[in-house]
Parts: sequence; structure tokens; C-alpha cells
Amino acid sequence: MIILSCDHAGFDYKNKIKNYLIKLNYEVSDMGPTKYESDDDYPDFVHPACKKMSDKDIGIFVCGSGIGANVVANRYHHIRAVNAVNTEMARLARKDEDANVLCLGARLISYQCALSIIKTFLKSRFEGGRHVRRINKI
Amino acid sequence: MIILSCDHAGFDYKNKIKNYLIKLNYEVSDMGPTKYESDDDYPDFVHPACKKMSDKDIGIFVCGSGIGANVVANRYHHIRAVNAVNTEMARLARKDEDANVLCLGARLISYQCALSIIKTFLKSRFEGGRHVRRINKI
Repeated sequence: MIILSCDHAGFDYKNKIKNYLIKLNYEVSDMGPTKYESDDDYPDFVHPACKKMSDKDIGIFVCGSGIGANVVANRYHHIRAVNAVNTEMARLARKDEDANVLCLGARLISYQCALSIIKTFLKSRFEGGRHVRRINKI
Repeated sequence: MIILSCDHAGFDYKNKIKNYLIKLNYEVSDMGPTKYESDDDYPDFVHPACKKMSDKDIGIFVCGSGIGANVVANRYHHIRAVNAVNTEMARLARKDEDANVLCLGARLISYQCALSIIKTFLKSRFEGGRHVRRINKI
């Protein structure tokens, strides 16, 4: 399952990403917000999304820069989150850190760029090997 | 004080950043590695650096992508870390999240780009206001 959350700054991207993923037959859980509020706070939506995530889930969280969502997500021991602004970061995060959460900044990257990053994140695979040792030390 | 750490991939940048900061009269603490080992693990150096950080310190951690260091750093409740690949991310992280740790990817950005990001990070200031409310919810 792909778990989505955002704040006001990421609201439009989150809704478009949701429709995009549903069309591709992904099971999606939208942890909100479901209504645009211009002064809402990313932790109010990112925390519930993190708590909902099982080991098999992927999270995609969108705020203005992706930075705040990334800080919140990485507070959780079952989460390894990347704030990716290009596809190479998404690929490396999956390959080396077995990242399960992708944080995106709607004020930093275009929607088309966000889609490319999401595609790369979803298709990239963990390499294992020495990276298992490193993840165990996180 | 500026606290530095890295792994093999960030070793060269970390040493150059250290010399650069010392020339600018910053007080620097180098948490290692002090010797190049081609298969060392970023958590072995990032965890001690995080534990050393007081409220007034800034951390600069360098690994291959900055992603692994960023995950480790954000595990700590006294740290808000950004993995910046451009100056805008560094500026926003300080302004909105009052970030105190900067993670850099030596395989993603040039050394000159890393220096520009560091300069922006060090000179940017927290905006406060609504961002205090959000940080308190992290």
C-alpha cells in the first residue's frame, strides 16, 4: 500500500499523485488533509501517516520543501525517509538505504519532476550486501 | 561549534570543509573518520557526532548521497537535519525548520556546490512565527 500525506503546500500535488497511483492500480491510503487549509501544519498529517505504515508500505509525503516531512518521518524507527529533488536521489535511497518514505517539496520541484522521482522510487530495489550492515547500525 | 563527520565517500570533502571552516575562524570538532577506510559505515561516525551536539552547535555530515547520514541524524530529538543539494534547500531548512544539521552527498554535488550550500546554511536564520508551532509538533 502507498500511504500519502501532505500539508497545504503539498495539497495539490498529493491529490494529483493519488489519482495517478490509483490509475496505475496501486492501493492508496490518503492520510490527509482532505480539505485545503492555508495554514495547516505538516506534522498533523505526517505523524498519522508514519504510524499507519507497516513494513511493506511505501509513504509519499508532500510539503513545501519536503524538509519538514523528512524530519518527522525519520523520527520513526521503522522509517527511512529521503527528501528527493531528483531521480538519482530516489534511486540511491532505495538501493543503499532501502528507503520506504519519499518526501517531496512542491515549492522546489515541478509536478512532472515529482512524477519522475516517484516512478524511479517505486521501481528501484534495495541492493542488500554491505548496506544491510549499515542500516542495522542506524 | 561546528561538528563534522563523514564516511569513506565523504572523507575528502569533510577534510576540505574542516580546513575551510578553520580558516574562517569557526571552532570545529572533527568526529571522524580521521583515516580513510574504503568500507567504513556512516552510522559509526554520525551517531557520535549527533550525541556530541548541544543546542548551540551546527553539524555538517558528509556521505555518498547524504541520505544515510540524514536518516541517522533525524533519529535524534535535538536534531533537525536537511539533506541539501542546493542553496535553496539550505536556506529553507534554516528559515522554516531551524535545521541544525546539514547532510551533504559527495557523490551528488561538487565541492564548490557543497561550499555554497554551507555558506548559505551558516548565514540563514530561523524565521520563527508559525514555524515554531510546527517544530513543536515534530
